[in-house]
Amino acid sequence: MTRRVLTGIKPTGTPHLGNLLGAFRPALRLADEGLDAMYFIADYHALTTVKDRAQLARYTHEVAATWLALGLDPERTLFYRQSDVPEIFELSWVLACFTSKGWLDRAHAYKSAMAAGDTEINMGLYTYPVLMAADILAFDSDLVPVGKDQDQHVEIARDIAQRVNHMVGHDVLRVPAARIEHDSAVVPGTDGRKMSKSYGNTIPLFATAAERKKIIGRIVTDSTPPEAPKDPATSTIFELYRAVATPAEAEALAARYRSGIGWGEAKQALADRLEQELAIPRARYQELIADPARLDGILAAGAEKARAYARGVLERVRVAIGISRPR
Amino acid sequence: MTRRVLTGIKPTGTPHLGNLLGAFRPALRLADEGLDAMYFIADYHALTTVKDRAQLARYTHEVAATWLALGLDPERTLFYRQSDVPEIFELSWVLACFTSKGWLDRAHAYKSAMAAGDTEINMGLYTYPVLMAADILAFDSDLVPVGKDQDQHVEIARDIAQRVNHMVGHDVLRVPAARIEHDSAVVPGTDGRKMSKSYGNTIPLFATAAERKKIIGRIVTDSTPPEAPKDPATSTIFELYRAVATPAEAEALAARYRSGIGWGEAKQALADRLEQELAIPRARYQELIADPARLDGILAAGAEKARAYARGVLERVRVAIGISRPR
Repeated sequence: MTRRVLTGIKPTGTPHLGNLLGAFRPALRLADEGLDAMYFIADYHALTTVKDRAQLARYTHEVAATWLALGLDPERTLFYRQSDVPEIFELSWVLACFTSKGWLDRAHAYKSAMAAGDTEINMGLYTYPVLMAADILAFDSDLVPVGKDQDQHVEIARDIAQRVNHMVGHDVLRVPAARIEHDSAVVPGTDGRKMSKSYGNTIPLFATAAERKKIIGRIVTDSTPPEAPKDPATSTIFELYRAVATPAEAEALAARYRSGIGWGEAKQALADRLEQELAIPRARYQELIADPARLDGILAAGAEKARAYARGVLERVRVAIGISRPR
Repeated sequence: MTRRVLTGIKPTGTPHLGNLLGAFRPALRLADEGLDAMYFIADYHALTTVKDRAQLARYTHEVAATWLALGLDPERTLFYRQSDVPEIFELSWVLACFTSKGWLDRAHAYKSAMAAGDTEINMGLYTYPVLMAADILAFDSDLVPVGKDQDQHVEIARDIAQRVNHMVGHDVLRVPAARIEHDSAVVPGTDGRKMSKSYGNTIPLFATAAERKKIIGRIVTDSTPPEAPKDPATSTIFELYRAVATPAEAEALAARYRSGIGWGEAKQALADRLEQELAIPRARYQELIADPARLDGILAAGAEKARAYARGVLERVRVAIGISRPR
């Protein structure tokens, strides 16, 4: 049986180059690995932090359009918005009744919020691993690709599924496994730190060539003269270039660094390479984002397929725990 | 506008005399007070403790049949099973994102479980006030009748509603109020302690006359001779009689106590009075419980009305927070 693999992305900001390389692209490759790929927009997870209605609605459409612009095929894969599948939330309550509070007290997201001195932790943030478990278990996911820091949350989903199965006496839930995605070099932002919305150092994925050029222009460089040899390994510009280029292209640019390249020239090379990479997806993206009715139509069709699946899983669970349906 | 009042009962055991006097009857009187009364079977709340599927299904049907046997009119009031209204669970997640974790750490049910040394607290128990808030807010409830110990949970629902309203900038949720029901004398069980399933001292509401007589026969009495005067105030038999009888009837039995009554006679008086009280509801109950398809039909009709209402509230909330619907 084809293994089912699930990826969700939270719409908490406008998609940027770091998201492309760290999230969208690795996820989209799964569909080519012979896996049964499922993708969703985790808008209700975003609600734990995004409380501005216009922002949440906009980011949700942006993430949806990004998935599609980057090549997600909604005919070949399951593609839906979390909030269109109410079965997930009902399942989440069932799972909560089988989840030890202690498991969540030790969960990563909560502990880091505490460590960051967050005094106003909301229950959405705290119980987020239970909803994530429902996301996973509602679709009989076999595999969940995650970064190292999310491994523990998949572990919680496993623990919950196993406890439910144990208590009802048979395998009503499929026990998922994490697939740890080893970060291929962190993508640096324009200030050299990890590219992240919270640092304000991102390169938006679908900026126009002119906008992107302006942003790249802001990358701080030193005053080494153009002709002096430069070390590619310490250059943010080079790191960004390498992240999208082929190994041969990267080696060629590295050679130019070593033989002396002006910072302006290096920035131009990066801008050109990004434009080459992103011009076609951007055109698709712009078409989609300008046509919200079409986007909503695609999401509605996906929601229907997703609900049909999740309803089957929920029904299994309801029967197993004694929550009957009206006839 | 008619005020909306909501009562839920958890199906955690077979309904007994204590439930009749402490829960079903006071709730059913509300419909006669000119309030818009709503009643539900809180089966998903029961799941925090009842993990046996056959028990949960049976108790749910028993509570449904009890409501109806005691006179609930599903045409005049809203009557539904919580698990038939998925909107409640989606709303519950939204509310969680606006609920301070600190509020729940201070909540009564959780603190008493902790105090009782419960080391395996599940997230259902811990987050129960959030689901209770969703139960209340999904139906624009104005009033929630509660015992003193549940007052705090309605307070949490108020706090959540107010925070949501504040953050979205308008009154999207109706802020409920608790209506504290002052316990009219606790109903004693057959051992003299409060009647409670956990003490195993209950008189099932719809036992046959013979079964009930046998249970009443077990009430421990002293060896005072029949002709000796007795104090009604210290007699469990008298307390139970008074709980169902009119004041005049109670006074008449008290007079018999004072002039000397045999314990067997007193027990017979109680058994007769209960039979008088419960024979008709029991006949209705037996008819209903023997016809699960009819019961499910009534619940399905109620679910439809309940969902239509809750869907409207959830839609208001979704728009307010920026979770859009597919067109």
